[in-house]
Amino acid sequence: MKFQLTILGSSSATPVRNRFPSSQLLNINEKLFLIDCGEAAQIQLLRYGLKASRIDHIFISHLHGDHYFGLPGLLSTLHLNGRTKPLMLYGPPQLIEIINLTLTCSQTQLRYPLEFIPVDAGAPTRLLENSEITVETIIMNHRIPCTGFLFREKPRLPNIIREKIQEYAIPSELISSIKQGMDLRLPDGRVIPNQELTLAPRPSRAYAYCADTLVKPDIIPQIKEVDLLYHEATFTSEMLERANETFHSTAAQAAEIARKAQVKKLIIGHFSARYRELSPLLEEARAVFPPTELAREGSVFDVGE
Amino acid sequence: MKFQLTILGSSSATPVRNRFPSSQLLNINEKLFLIDCGEAAQIQLLRYGLKASRIDHIFISHLHGDHYFGLPGLLSTLHLNGRTKPLMLYGPPQLIEIINLTLTCSQTQLRYPLEFIPVDAGAPTRLLENSEITVETIIMNHRIPCTGFLFREKPRLPNIIREKIQEYAIPSELISSIKQGMDLRLPDGRVIPNQELTLAPRPSRAYAYCADTLVKPDIIPQIKEVDLLYHEATFTSEMLERANETFHSTAAQAAEIARKAQVKKLIIGHFSARYRELSPLLEEARAVFPPTELAREGSVFDVGE
Repeated sequence: MKFQLTILGSSSATPVRNRFPSSQLLNINEKLFLIDCGEAAQIQLLRYGLKASRIDHIFISHLHGDHYFGLPGLLSTLHLNGRTKPLMLYGPPQLIEIINLTLTCSQTQLRYPLEFIPVDAGAPTRLLENSEITVETIIMNHRIPCTGFLFREKPRLPNIIREKIQEYAIPSELISSIKQGMDLRLPDGRVIPNQELTLAPRPSRAYAYCADTLVKPDIIPQIKEVDLLYHEATFTSEMLERANETFHSTAAQAAEIARKAQVKKLIIGHFSARYRELSPLLEEARAVFPPTELAREGSVFDVGE
Repeated sequence: MKFQLTILGSSSATPVRNRFPSSQLLNINEKLFLIDCGEAAQIQLLRYGLKASRIDHIFISHLHGDHYFGLPGLLSTLHLNGRTKPLMLYGPPQLIEIINLTLTCSQTQLRYPLEFIPVDAGAPTRLLENSEITVETIIMNHRIPCTGFLFREKPRLPNIIREKIQEYAIPSELISSIKQGMDLRLPDGRVIPNQELTLAPRPSRAYAYCADTLVKPDIIPQIKEVDLLYHEATFTSEMLERANETFHSTAAQAAEIARKAQVKKLIIGHFSARYRELSPLLEEARAVFPPTELAREGSVFDVGE
């Protein structure tokens, strides 16, 4: 099952040439999830040949403009392109007021149902659960209410050992029950315990998106051992004071969170416009947590193996 | 005096690869005026090395998103970059509600005064007059209230003929009065009439921006003989019915307005996303009005000679 992240924008508050404000696209088994929607996110989707029409869920972390100013345009484009299927939008309660005001002013009645789920930034909440994944909030500590999002595959079923199917001539109608844990009773009365027939499933994969935040170690238990962690790293440690004032993190702090949470890989992003060259941020993070990568427009990361 | 237009975006409602929604920058004597501000206008300014900080006046034609969804981001960037000088914003009355709501939601208090001038789309109005130019509205006919904008240099003063200064030994303190029309009285009592001393000034130049509209011949007297006319041309004539339904113009209609108004040059823009190639639009317009050009991202037009 595909579980793949594409970076659409890596920049913090003000855009920089060739860097766009925050936005990411997550492809989970060919279903598309948009995470934040900075200005020009729809233009970035076009650039990378990613079909906006296939997005069914949009998650907005908070109401600083660099995380959602691309949303009114994207919603409008979906409307103009004839979308009729519902779109789920998750974000701070006031987000829908902004969207509704832009629609009222343009006298637009969307052709598709826009289902808005207000997100409470007070405590982690499960926002979505379907047959494949769960999505829950991660509570951030920013100047205004802000959440991250944790995408996790549902636990997988064990795999039946192929040789055992032949050895015991297991009929196909029993496969599903055995995967769910049933022992096998043979015609001669013998009982083969489930653990002899199955292999433990591959662990379910997870992606954690930690949006704008003052470094916040109490998220570590929630993001423990995720396959891929995105954590904002607006500044290098030289700017620690500025990071604290503006409720942002440094690259070293992001890496320290990744190290303590024992995640498999870290992506840092939300870079301040002051950094034309990003290598100082990467070097600082890698000194603490070597498997770190930069969020770069257009780069693609697989979640897990 | 410089009077120069740069196209930032040429696309209609939905963006197309390498085409951005409507936005233009007008440089009049090194003072910058932004006309409409579609999504990513600030990114286009960066791309072309144009300093957003030097813009003091922003004109928004109407509240369809492709004409203003870049504005909240631009206003925010100016704030974050430390602007303190006032910014004048002209647009439909509800525009300020949208801006204020985005500022409230992000708990932002702009560091600079944002002076909002609500624009009445009922009758042409003078929005701005300074020592160099006037700006007035052009009333469009669109699905929602919409105006264009007419930028016109102030009438220039006549030039004094250099040889006459020597011939009559005109003292420098009289030059200004003669330029304003005074006759010259010589010490011997003779009076030299003003028309013998001066040459008529170069005609003052004008740029007319005609935003989204059903073709509207009653604007012709107002835009008569302007040096440069931008007129939307969303469709070719094959799509006339669609143009009428959506209150837009065809390339032939735009060119017919230019021809009847006897303008010097026409730029067409606001192209529908259906046109990957723009040559059919250009050919259609040139068949009616040969001095027509396409609005193309990054292209620059001088107003007048």
